[in-house]
Amino acid sequence: MKQGRFITVEGPDGAGKSTILKELYGMLIEEGFEVVQTREPGGVSIAEQIREVILNKDNTAMDIRTEALLYAAARRQHLVEVVIPALEKGSIVICDRFIDSSLAYQGNGRGIGMTEVMNINQFAIEDKMPDLTLYFDISPEEGLKRIARHDGREVNRLDLESLDFHQKVYKGYQTLIKQYPDRIKVVDASKSKEEVFEQAYDIVKRFVG
Amino acid sequence: MKQGRFITVEGPDGAGKSTILKELYGMLIEEGFEVVQTREPGGVSIAEQIREVILNKDNTAMDIRTEALLYAAARRQHLVEVVIPALEKGSIVICDRFIDSSLAYQGNGRGIGMTEVMNINQFAIEDKMPDLTLYFDISPEEGLKRIARHDGREVNRLDLESLDFHQKVYKGYQTLIKQYPDRIKVVDASKSKEEVFEQAYDIVKRFVG
Repeated sequence: MKQGRFITVEGPDGAGKSTILKELYGMLIEEGFEVVQTREPGGVSIAEQIREVILNKDNTAMDIRTEALLYAAARRQHLVEVVIPALEKGSIVICDRFIDSSLAYQGNGRGIGMTEVMNINQFAIEDKMPDLTLYFDISPEEGLKRIARHDGREVNRLDLESLDFHQKVYKGYQTLIKQYPDRIKVVDASKSKEEVFEQAYDIVKRFVG
Repeated sequence: MKQGRFITVEGPDGAGKSTILKELYGMLIEEGFEVVQTREPGGVSIAEQIREVILNKDNTAMDIRTEALLYAAARRQHLVEVVIPALEKGSIVICDRFIDSSLAYQGNGRGIGMTEVMNINQFAIEDKMPDLTLYFDISPEEGLKRIARHDGREVNRLDLESLDFHQKVYKGYQTLIKQYPDRIKVVDASKSKEEVFEQAYDIVKRFVG
């Protein structure tokens, strides 16, 4: 049976993943690879409905563990409906954020604990861990500055208040890099767009051959 | 700090829990106890929204693990918003179905595995296991017959097709009774309504003193 490759892309907000991903996808397609680019909830109706509950502004009473379980549920559905069928067709699947985001954001950022969040995500994904993960490395301070620049405004009080959260997320990712050195490859996202693309492309090309 | 008692009520469909629960609640209130009777999603908006996703008839593509994660998420929110605040006020909380239902229905009935479903539910409830669980024991065959009688119709092909599922649920409950002999007390639900109430009342009275 053909079996594709499952690549995920991770990193703090403002690391510039989306731009690079688009180029990477275009390049691989041009070279004749079968590529599916996706991100949760990926147009999957059930996952979209779950996402609506998570993002509903009226749901201010949402507990952080409820939120983590909902992310895991949406992940499961997207995995079953989009990722696994594409892998079974032999495609390269590039997914913008996956399990590591939950571990870094909910596990370390929100303070639930990475092991605990890993447990419910293992239930969600069973053995379907990514084959390769590109980690776009940028300091939380730089990431926030970039978001601010992108929005055409200065870093404000709210951004600064959340710096502590983003630092915890960053530390979560650092832990994961140490924990999965074979799977997670670090891209220095502080460089120019061209240099970041080159790094990402080299890693992926070495991987898919 | 005052701390209430957390009582859950479990059993296969058709075991007659609801009728007995209503009487039990009335009796305890009459005797001067502070009692909160509830069931998931219990009017909690976020839990209701999750429930809608689970029960939406268009969601035929729902994976059984997605479903189990959604039940755990709704449980978490109901626990945090309803059960824990009531327990902290010193009330007796009587909850119609809780973690054991997920273990028996999703874990054994759907075949995910009880240990796996326990893991995500432990994430959801942390250490908040029920102090006492009344298990309404009735064979799956008798339970289905009662549902059929209640609906004023004979057992039909669909009921028979699902007998296998209900037998698995029943076996799941039997495993739980052996696993938690101190917590789960068995009520023989095959008896008359009056006798079933007496059994349930005796167990609860001995427990709350």
